[in-house]
Amino acid sequence: MCQLLGMNCNTPTDICFSFEGFRTRGGLTDVHRDGWGIAFFEGPGCRVFLDVEPSAQSAVAELVRNYPIHSKNVIAHIRKATQGRIALENTHPFQRELWGRYWIFAHNGNLKEFAPPLDGSFTPVGGTDSERAFCHILQELRSRFGDRMPRRDALFAALAELAGRIARHGEFNFLLSSGDCLFAHCGSKLCYVVRQAPFAVAHLKDQDVSVDFSEVTNPEDRVAVIATLPLTDNEEWITLAPGTLTLFHDGMPVRGESTCG
Amino acid sequence: MCQLLGMNCNTPTDICFSFEGFRTRGGLTDVHRDGWGIAFFEGPGCRVFLDVEPSAQSAVAELVRNYPIHSKNVIAHIRKATQGRIALENTHPFQRELWGRYWIFAHNGNLKEFAPPLDGSFTPVGGTDSERAFCHILQELRSRFGDRMPRRDALFAALAELAGRIARHGEFNFLLSSGDCLFAHCGSKLCYVVRQAPFAVAHLKDQDVSVDFSEVTNPEDRVAVIATLPLTDNEEWITLAPGTLTLFHDGMPVRGESTCG
Repeated sequence: MCQLLGMNCNTPTDICFSFEGFRTRGGLTDVHRDGWGIAFFEGPGCRVFLDVEPSAQSAVAELVRNYPIHSKNVIAHIRKATQGRIALENTHPFQRELWGRYWIFAHNGNLKEFAPPLDGSFTPVGGTDSERAFCHILQELRSRFGDRMPRRDALFAALAELAGRIARHGEFNFLLSSGDCLFAHCGSKLCYVVRQAPFAVAHLKDQDVSVDFSEVTNPEDRVAVIATLPLTDNEEWITLAPGTLTLFHDGMPVRGESTCG
Repeated sequence: MCQLLGMNCNTPTDICFSFEGFRTRGGLTDVHRDGWGIAFFEGPGCRVFLDVEPSAQSAVAELVRNYPIHSKNVIAHIRKATQGRIALENTHPFQRELWGRYWIFAHNGNLKEFAPPLDGSFTPVGGTDSERAFCHILQELRSRFGDRMPRRDALFAALAELAGRIARHGEFNFLLSSGDCLFAHCGSKLCYVVRQAPFAVAHLKDQDVSVDFSEVTNPEDRVAVIATLPLTDNEEWITLAPGTLTLFHDGMPVRGESTCG
C-alpha cells in the first residue's frame, strides 16, 4: 500500500510544508520506502520528479523540499510496493497526454484480477495495476468523448462511473489531474483540509514543524490539501466517504458523488 | 536556436562531466537561457527534469550536476526560444508513450510553415514547432507499424524518411530515444565523440574542468556523446553530415544514412 498527497489551489502555491511531513513517511516515520514521486502543473506544462530511493533519504526529495515550485495542482505519492517490482517505471505518479493536456495519476490500493482490454492508445510501461488502471481510464475517456475534452460535468460523471467499476477489483484510492482541477477518488481512505482566511498556524503530525499561514498567504488564497492520512494535528481534516469521487477546483471541493451505486 | 546533448552507452553511465560543460552554455558561456531539460532512461523507466530558469543558474540543474544518475540513454536540451513563449510546456525534451515505451525528443532548429494534420493520437500541449514535429513523428510511426514496435531497421528507415520530409521545412536537428538506442538527426549541426578504452583525460571547452576517464571506467565501457558543438577541446569530435540520421547503440554509431534524398 502507499500514501497519496494532493493539492489544489486558487492561486499557485508551494507545497513545501505539506511535503515535509509527507516525505518522512517514506522510510522514516512510516514504511512507504519503495520509491516516491511528485508532479507539479505550471500552466499547461507539468514536471514530474521521481525517485526509487525512499523519500526520507532521496536527494531529489531534498530538492523538492527546498525549492518552492508554485502550482495550482500537485499530486505526490510514496510507495509501498504491492504489484510491480521497485523500479522507476513502477513509480507514481504516471503521466500521459490526452486532448493536448498532460494527465497525472497516482493510486493507493491494490486491484486484483484487473486486466481490462487495452487497444494500444495508452499502454503501461511498467507492471503495476495502477498504471494499467490509468491507461484504461484514459482510453475509455477518449473512446467516449472523441478528440475533444468534454465539459467538466461530463468528465466527472464518466470518471465516477469508471472509478466505481474499477473499484470492484479492490482498493482504489486515486488522485487525477490535467492541470485545472483535481479528481480524488476515495475507495477506502482519503481525507482533506481546506486552508483559507482567517489563516492560522498549522503543526505537522509527523514532525515538530509549524508554519503560520497568515504570514505567507494573501486573504483571498484558498488551498485544499488531500491526503491518505491527515498531515497536521491541529486542523480539521474531513474524511471522504468510501466509494465517492470528489472534484476539487480553486482550492475547495465543488462536486462529490457516490460512485459505488 | 538551441543546443542538444545526448549520451548513449553500453553500460549505465552518469553524464555529470558533459552536463557540467553543457549547462554553462545556458546563460553563462552562451545565450541559451530560455529553459532547459534533461531526460534519463533507467530501464524502461524514464525521468525528465525541466526548468524554465537558465541552466547555468537553475537549482534543478545544480541537482542534476551533483547527483550521478546512471543511464544508458540521456537527452538534454538548452533553449533559445524561436517558436513558443518561454514556459514549461515549451521546454524540451518532450515525452510521450508509444508501444508501452516512453519516447523522448529534443530539437534544435526552426521549422517554418509546418502544420501536419494530427489525428489526436498525439497532440502538442505547448506551442513549439518541435513538439508538433514529435507528435507528427509518433503518429506516423503508429500509423505505419500499428500497435507493435517494429524491428530497429524498419524503425530507422521510417524515421530517416520522416526526418527528411520534415527537414524541408527548416533546420531539423533532433535526438530521439525510447530507451534502448538513440537516434540523432543532423539537419545542419551535430557532432559526436566515442569514449572507449584506452580512456584518457578529457578537458571541457567551456570551463577549466578535466576528468581522467581511466579512473572512473571499466575497460569494456563505451560511451557516445552527441552534441550540437564539441564539449571538450582535446578529443576527436566527429561532425555528422547534414541530412543524415544516425543510430547509436551500445555507445557507438551502428547505422547512418542520408535522409535528404
